[in-house]
Amino acid sequence: MRRNGLERQRAKSHFPPDAAARRMLLRIPTAPPEETVSSARRRLTDPKAVWDSVSYVYVVDDERHLLGVVSIKELLRSDGMQAMRAFAKRNLAVVHPHSDVRVAAARAIARGVKMLPVVDHDGTLMGAVGTDEILSTLEAEHVRSVLSASGLAATRARFSEVIAARLPQLIAWRTPWLVVGLFGGMLATLLVDGFRQDLESVIALAFFIPVIVYMGDAVGTQTQTIYVRSLALEALDKRHYFAREVAVDATMGLVSALLIGPFALLLTGMPQVAAIVSLSMFLVMVAAGPVAIAIPELLRKFGRDPAVGGGPFTTIVQDLLSLSIYFAVASWLLI
Amino acid sequence: MRRNGLERQRAKSHFPPDAAARRMLLRIPTAPPEETVSSARRRLTDPKAVWDSVSYVYVVDDERHLLGVVSIKELLRSDGMQAMRAFAKRNLAVVHPHSDVRVAAARAIARGVKMLPVVDHDGTLMGAVGTDEILSTLEAEHVRSVLSASGLAATRARFSEVIAARLPQLIAWRTPWLVVGLFGGMLATLLVDGFRQDLESVIALAFFIPVIVYMGDAVGTQTQTIYVRSLALEALDKRHYFAREVAVDATMGLVSALLIGPFALLLTGMPQVAAIVSLSMFLVMVAAGPVAIAIPELLRKFGRDPAVGGGPFTTIVQDLLSLSIYFAVASWLLI
Repeated sequence: MRRNGLERQRAKSHFPPDAAARRMLLRIPTAPPEETVSSARRRLTDPKAVWDSVSYVYVVDDERHLLGVVSIKELLRSDGMQAMRAFAKRNLAVVHPHSDVRVAAARAIARGVKMLPVVDHDGTLMGAVGTDEILSTLEAEHVRSVLSASGLAATRARFSEVIAARLPQLIAWRTPWLVVGLFGGMLATLLVDGFRQDLESVIALAFFIPVIVYMGDAVGTQTQTIYVRSLALEALDKRHYFAREVAVDATMGLVSALLIGPFALLLTGMPQVAAIVSLSMFLVMVAAGPVAIAIPELLRKFGRDPAVGGGPFTTIVQDLLSLSIYFAVASWLLI
Repeated sequence: MRRNGLERQRAKSHFPPDAAARRMLLRIPTAPPEETVSSARRRLTDPKAVWDSVSYVYVVDDERHLLGVVSIKELLRSDGMQAMRAFAKRNLAVVHPHSDVRVAAARAIARGVKMLPVVDHDGTLMGAVGTDEILSTLEAEHVRSVLSASGLAATRARFSEVIAARLPQLIAWRTPWLVVGLFGGMLATLLVDGFRQDLESVIALAFFIPVIVYMGDAVGTQTQTIYVRSLALEALDKRHYFAREVAVDATMGLVSALLIGPFALLLTGMPQVAAIVSLSMFLVMVAAGPVAIAIPELLRKFGRDPAVGGGPFTTIVQDLLSLSIYFAVASWLLI
């Protein structure tokens, strides 16, 4: 039996605001499998019918279970005497009513479709996420992730708003993460201060602070970019992912260690410093990937969106960790 | 006069590969303004007609000048006796044949439409950029900008390919920018080395290297993220943009300078060091924005895509500049 519009409307409100069920179109054409094409076409052209979209006609059984779909293009060009079931496309990409619209948009892209039927656990068609919704979700998600990855506290703004923002608003969006970073940087200052004695005895150790910190950040940024986007995909094997990341980091760390070691020896003439810099570089780069993965994971655990603030926050933690590794190795290897 | 398919096909090949004209659908339904709705509908259901898309019927005059558009939804529900001109939507968002598909996709998003007619300089309809193209362009552009901003040399890869890549491929994508960064870091090492004497006399100056470098990068990343995306929009007033950026950077630089100064004084007890750190912080942050804008501009001048490599390259330049400013200020203020 079909549920009427009011019932469906009421059912919608039980879902969270970003659920597919809250953003779906309800007035979409359906047809029983035995209906002829010309009859379906006639219903579409009924001036009394109001449709949210006519891009697809969904073929459903008596209980509104989704059986297939016919695009408007096929419907118009097909022989009017044929039954809808004859050329309905099966094996559809669908989305569940409780799924996030962002999952729906990603799936639509992956499957190359322009609309995504919303189907509940027993296969009943509830509505469809329309093209407008898919387009605007993709765009909003893009803007949000790019802005927040670079430390702008404007996660709800459209990009055009950021461009057109007045100076005080722009400063209000840009300053918070910078101030957090500044306090993180003060912690880094204290860390280096704690290492004052070793620095005084071997000043050359100070030369390598920027490159050690830079390389940790660079690896971490790469890792986090890939990881946060991977999280949006379904069925990510985290254990495998983690192992792979460590293997990649270790390889790149080894290459970097082998390049920076001779350079340090040449510059300072001190094998000890070369060993410290080289070993630290390797350890910093091996640690960077796991840290860049762990931080969005922790944010998720605490119910925060890993895409927001993950970037700048990770950089701060990474800097502190890199300096700690460097100074620990130095203390250990300095005679 | 209508150009035939072959002629249009030939015309397409004169455009660069990412031009709207190369990616547009050619077989789209058109109708003269005086045609009735039922006649237009009949043509759409002609089984011999082959359409790339039936989402919109474009209303054109005898010389194929675009006059308006009727969506399939309107066409189906409207009174069959009406003339197409009666309810064709005017003031359409259009795109020129030589425009990049990315411009077309951005415009479709901005105007909330699912297809964009391609119209040449005299208003002649050439085709339309379809929904599939808009969706895949948006997604590809997103992936490309995110991956390259974080220093992955995988600008042509789909994101699913990055996730599924074998280790050697992943390392090949991730290593190039890291090695460039490593050489940049070696230059930074030489810079600090050149400052050895001052560091030896005032070791406290070494404590602030990480925070100075970090803040320059943080401001630069924010600026570049906003700027590179702004470039994709049309009619950006660069002079105004630049002035605005400097004003924002100066404000945030002032706040940071006022916070780090007292901290430096407290930590070191040396007013001289506090003054050096505070002034350097201000100058580094004021310089960071313009540098982050100048680098993508230079890349564009040399015909390179500002979204590729802009991120890691800017960070390296920024680090070197920040260190130079810091040491120059220190040399100047140290007695």
